[in-house]
Amino acid sequence: MTASVLVAPGRIELQSRPIPTPAPDEVLVRVTAVGVCGSDVHFYREGHLGDWVVDEPLVLGHESGGTIVDVGSAVDRGRIGQRVSIEPQHPSIGSAETLRGDYNLDPHMHFYAVPGTDGAFQEYVTIQSHFAHSIPDTVSDHAAALMEPLSVAIATARKARFTPGTRVLITGAGPVGIATAQVARAYGVSEIIVSDVAAARRETALRFGATAVFDPTTTAPDELPEFDAFVDASGAAPAVRSGISTLRRAGRAVLVGMGAAEISLPITTIQNRELIITGVFRYANTWPTAIALAAHGQVELDAMVTGTFSLDEVQAALESTADANVMKSVVEPHRRMLG
Amino acid sequence: MTASVLVAPGRIELQSRPIPTPAPDEVLVRVTAVGVCGSDVHFYREGHLGDWVVDEPLVLGHESGGTIVDVGSAVDRGRIGQRVSIEPQHPSIGSAETLRGDYNLDPHMHFYAVPGTDGAFQEYVTIQSHFAHSIPDTVSDHAAALMEPLSVAIATARKARFTPGTRVLITGAGPVGIATAQVARAYGVSEIIVSDVAAARRETALRFGATAVFDPTTTAPDELPEFDAFVDASGAAPAVRSGISTLRRAGRAVLVGMGAAEISLPITTIQNRELIITGVFRYANTWPTAIALAAHGQVELDAMVTGTFSLDEVQAALESTADANVMKSVVEPHRRMLG
Amino acid sequence: MTASVLVAPGRIELQSRPIPTPAPDEVLVRVTAVGVCGSDVHFYREGHLGDWVVDEPLVLGHESGGTIVDVGSAVDRGRIGQRVSIEPQHPSIGSAETLRGDYNLDPHMHFYAVPGTDGAFQEYVTIQSHFAHSIPDTVSDHAAALMEPLSVAIATARKARFTPGTRVLITGAGPVGIATAQVARAYGVSEIIVSDVAAARRETALRFGATAVFDPTTTAPDELPEFDAFVDASGAAPAVRSGISTLRRAGRAVLVGMGAAEISLPITTIQNRELIITGVFRYANTWPTAIALAAHGQVELDAMVTGTFSLDEVQAALESTADANVMKSVVEPHRRMLG
Amino acid sequence: MTASVLVAPGRIELQSRPIPTPAPDEVLVRVTAVGVCGSDVHFYREGHLGDWVVDEPLVLGHESGGTIVDVGSAVDRGRIGQRVSIEPQHPSIGSAETLRGDYNLDPHMHFYAVPGTDGAFQEYVTIQSHFAHSIPDTVSDHAAALMEPLSVAIATARKARFTPGTRVLITGAGPVGIATAQVARAYGVSEIIVSDVAAARRETALRFGATAVFDPTTTAPDELPEFDAFVDASGAAPAVRSGISTLRRAGRAVLVGMGAAEISLPITTIQNRELIITGVFRYANTWPTAIALAAHGQVELDAMVTGTFSLDEVQAALESTADANVMKSVVEPHRRMLG
Repeated sequence: MTASVLVAPGRIELQSRPIPTPAPDEVLVRVTAVGVCGSDVHFYREGHLGDWVVDEPLVLGHESGGTIVDVGSAVDRGRIGQRVSIEPQHPSIGSAETLRGDYNLDPHMHFYAVPGTDGAFQEYVTIQSHFAHSIPDTVSDHAAALMEPLSVAIATARKARFTPGTRVLITGAGPVGIATAQVARAYGVSEIIVSDVAAARRETALRFGATAVFDPTTTAPDELPEFDAFVDASGAAPAVRSGISTLRRAGRAVLVGMGAAEISLPITTIQNRELIITGVFRYANTWPTAIALAAHGQVELDAMVTGTFSLDEVQAALESTADANVMKSVVEPHRRMLG
Repeated sequence: MTASVLVAPGRIELQSRPIPTPAPDEVLVRVTAVGVCGSDVHFYREGHLGDWVVDEPLVLGHESGGTIVDVGSAVDRGRIGQRVSIEPQHPSIGSAETLRGDYNLDPHMHFYAVPGTDGAFQEYVTIQSHFAHSIPDTVSDHAAALMEPLSVAIATARKARFTPGTRVLITGAGPVGIATAQVARAYGVSEIIVSDVAAARRETALRFGATAVFDPTTTAPDELPEFDAFVDASGAAPAVRSGISTLRRAGRAVLVGMGAAEISLPITTIQNRELIITGVFRYANTWPTAIALAAHGQVELDAMVTGTFSLDEVQAALESTADANVMKSVVEPHRRMLG
Repeated sequence: MTASVLVAPGRIELQSRPIPTPAPDEVLVRVTAVGVCGSDVHFYREGHLGDWVVDEPLVLGHESGGTIVDVGSAVDRGRIGQRVSIEPQHPSIGSAETLRGDYNLDPHMHFYAVPGTDGAFQEYVTIQSHFAHSIPDTVSDHAAALMEPLSVAIATARKARFTPGTRVLITGAGPVGIATAQVARAYGVSEIIVSDVAAARRETALRFGATAVFDPTTTAPDELPEFDAFVDASGAAPAVRSGISTLRRAGRAVLVGMGAAEISLPITTIQNRELIITGVFRYANTWPTAIALAAHGQVELDAMVTGTFSLDEVQAALESTADANVMKSVVEPHRRMLG
Repeated sequence: MTASVLVAPGRIELQSRPIPTPAPDEVLVRVTAVGVCGSDVHFYREGHLGDWVVDEPLVLGHESGGTIVDVGSAVDRGRIGQRVSIEPQHPSIGSAETLRGDYNLDPHMHFYAVPGTDGAFQEYVTIQSHFAHSIPDTVSDHAAALMEPLSVAIATARKARFTPGTRVLITGAGPVGIATAQVARAYGVSEIIVSDVAAARRETALRFGATAVFDPTTTAPDELPEFDAFVDASGAAPAVRSGISTLRRAGRAVLVGMGAAEISLPITTIQNRELIITGVFRYANTWPTAIALAAHGQVELDAMVTGTFSLDEVQAALESTADANVMKSVVEPHRRMLG
């Protein structure tokens, strides 16, 4: 099979590799679609992300779906042929975190496209059977791949306590912000205010669930109403700081966007209002919800895709995200390649 | 002013009474609409409800809205003229229950239309200012009144943990069941299955949020899928018992419908599946959510009203609920009365 | 090795069996102590428990500890020699219940001494490495075995929300009730009231944490104060019913004792007080807490042991529990057997 | 009566004032003991605390107890003569915060010894009846006053999820840190590690619940074990930062100590470990727990008192806190004054 491999910062190569063999509890998936995520782009450009360093060739891509074509010895062969969305993690079974249901926090995690574990920009991948989640026919291949960013938004919704009758601020209208706005709408949030410096992204936000938008360069925090919850999907320190300042007493800030390692926070405000500040690291137990939302038309995933690429165009797919009009680029590893 | 008074079981009289004077922390409301509730009908027919006995003349009606026409000495006079939905309770301020936010459970509660406290089937009522919740112009008088049953459904949603991606069973498609189905939809519940013995009510349920309906006389519990949450809005012992049997492990049953004082429950099932069984007694802190849902079009309240009545037709309004086609009868105390 | 096997109701045989081989993720444990539980006795006497039927020879015993003597291929050999307490379950890794941290509710569970899976009344057992919990030297072999009933009590404490300043009722002062009283004390519960029909058990309760005791045959529920939480450890329907009636508004009842499959419950009371009724099915994520409690002297486990038995005395150990003065009988599979 | 009044920064005067008259829902309390708090000292020295500025004469002191000597018209006269601990707040009844049980966060709060509301360094005070909490005879006058700092610790315990089997870090061994250590012990926390730069305070911590102590100037964060919860009772930025770095995944940091308005926090760590950061602003619904803890001997309050003062010695009491050997100074307004 063919794999698209990051061999050095800024350098992607196609390589021929053997099709992997599923372990007893795994399935083999023929990959149909893989979304491009900001962290893929970061690894591609910088060769590292936080403490993770790409020191060996790495296949990127962790937003993926496909069709089960083979199963390990312990898996029901009836699964062969099922269309699935891949939850790209493999936690250890015995850590305290996994056992209490926080398997995303397992310290021994193997995760697609993080150094040490190859991702999905290749024709076939393996995954534990229970993390190859079956999808109904009404969910497209693209949507199957986009369950992953949707899952980040669902994990956020749970931590931010999205619920009807509340007013939520989302800073940043990139793919994560847009997925969060959509999930907020699905959770019945009554007012969904989204900010972004780019007018095009504000427009997009209005299409995907925002009830109002604003430009943070022209609207000061004190012009904003009070929010029940604040989600930062920008990673920008000023957004984090001003977002926290808009929270009502006992409000919740959930920091999703990756940015500065340290930010100076208003401790007295956090104390006097008893605010809750937390972050999201991936997701656990979100796929069933994500699939239900997609299957019942409670979110629009296909509409988020702004471009598709073949496996030999992965570099172009990664580069495409620099354009503010691009929301989600999708690689289709089995599409006939160019020339 | 004129009040419609229950003077004996089955006997309603119009009486002339002085307009009440608001206490310092109260407002005086000119009542525009009052929904008829099953508990009103129970008091009207039987003269009692559980341990409450009507031993003095009582004004019924606790689902109400209107316009503030006067305020007590401690209330901002700027409130005069506001259209409001009335939260018909007056808890004591110092009980443990009130202080921890469960004011609905306050043992010293005064509640509209419960013996000892007159309700809203009269031209004017008083209520503490903070329980006269302002509504926007987009919310009708009828909807203002129906915030009350909507609040029961919201309290239910919170206890049942309504959330996207879940499957909920609601037994009983009377006004409470229908409000619960609507709230389930607003909370993003993905599958809302409603049962009722009456075909007309099942039809209605489908209009108001149910994704599927069934007739409990022809569908056995073991034909049903597994549910994340079960809400009984029927009060019928067989519905309660079979609903509990459909719950998944760690599922939740919320008993809202009033019926048998005792029901034999499957204890071993509750234990082996670690089910959570609880009930709803009115509501606390629901009005802001209810108003937001109505104001943002997340529920349809006006469409629930199947008939309106003037103040001299209260008896007819109470009798009307016997008809399965009647969902919600509304009394309009200031409507010109019949010749 | 030698195993003590239930071959028919009331009939226990010693059998010679090969020492089991640990699977890759398992350890082999030389068993030093095994507590006798009421469910063992039930299987022994009746040949079934609820829906579980003993239709093949079965080794009983699920409260156990010992020393790791060998490990599977995937386990660190450094574990050999460790003294451990065994969490006697083997859930599947991919069920929704396991993934969300409720692995005790996994529908594909294999559990010691439940038909299909042998228990610990034998010289050696295997268990997944992470469920062989290391214990410090200060924790005895007996205490290692009794982490299991302690875990039931911890699971109960969490569901009942044991916390300082509360008043808790525990009905039944058998081993589960006593462990629950001890855990209530460790959790800082301020008033721990225990009832039992047997005077000897009431005495014992006072020794192990009860702040007061009463005889339910002479004290009526309405003579009792109001409780924040109620734990039934008796399985007796009258205890369950009267315990629920003593709960304050929003109080919690946790049903642990196994008894009648169905009990008639006061639904109106549950509704009007918004009580929460639930049950406990084993435990998840309790061992670290249990070991900390034992290691820091926050509970007394050794003092609960009222008799010890060798492997050829299992039948006597099972029979011993009929005596109200027996709290916990422990089998020591490696003790020199009688002549 | 006599009141001790802050008339300018650093200047306390005795003034003769009329005994206050209780409002209908209030009681009049003859004050027997008032603890000195760091915030009193701050107002005394600086004339302000955060946004609060002392621009009129102010009676300090908010940790108090006494005896009810008169009641308002709506209060049961049977309360006269009761010994009470005073919860020194008067929230508005109708705010969203009060109604949902977070009355400490009420934006219209009147609080003892905060500019606008006199405190308890005077012979008599008034308070709403339900915030004059009756205490049993076994609780001393000093302990009655110290329910207030104990309440801060209880509020902290709830937010930090103190529970058996956990390991807690407390930075700062002043009165708040010591009260928190005591409460941690009462909640069954298994390991309570306290840090302070002062050796005397570390000694004190060991006496009041700490299971280990360390000097932060000689112990680096990476020498510490991983903590389930971290409470900062120092207000020092380095303590806050290094405390957060010791938290396990999904651990909780509760910031109680008042210090820098802004602190640079490790956002990536908060995200990758999904830490929860929050603060404590006073307390709600803690007094019943506090009184139970004191009454059942689960905390030691009397032993925290290191000096007592008469009403004409308030200035000395305030100055006394500069000494690291002073833990809690108590003013006794009715003690015979010096010559």
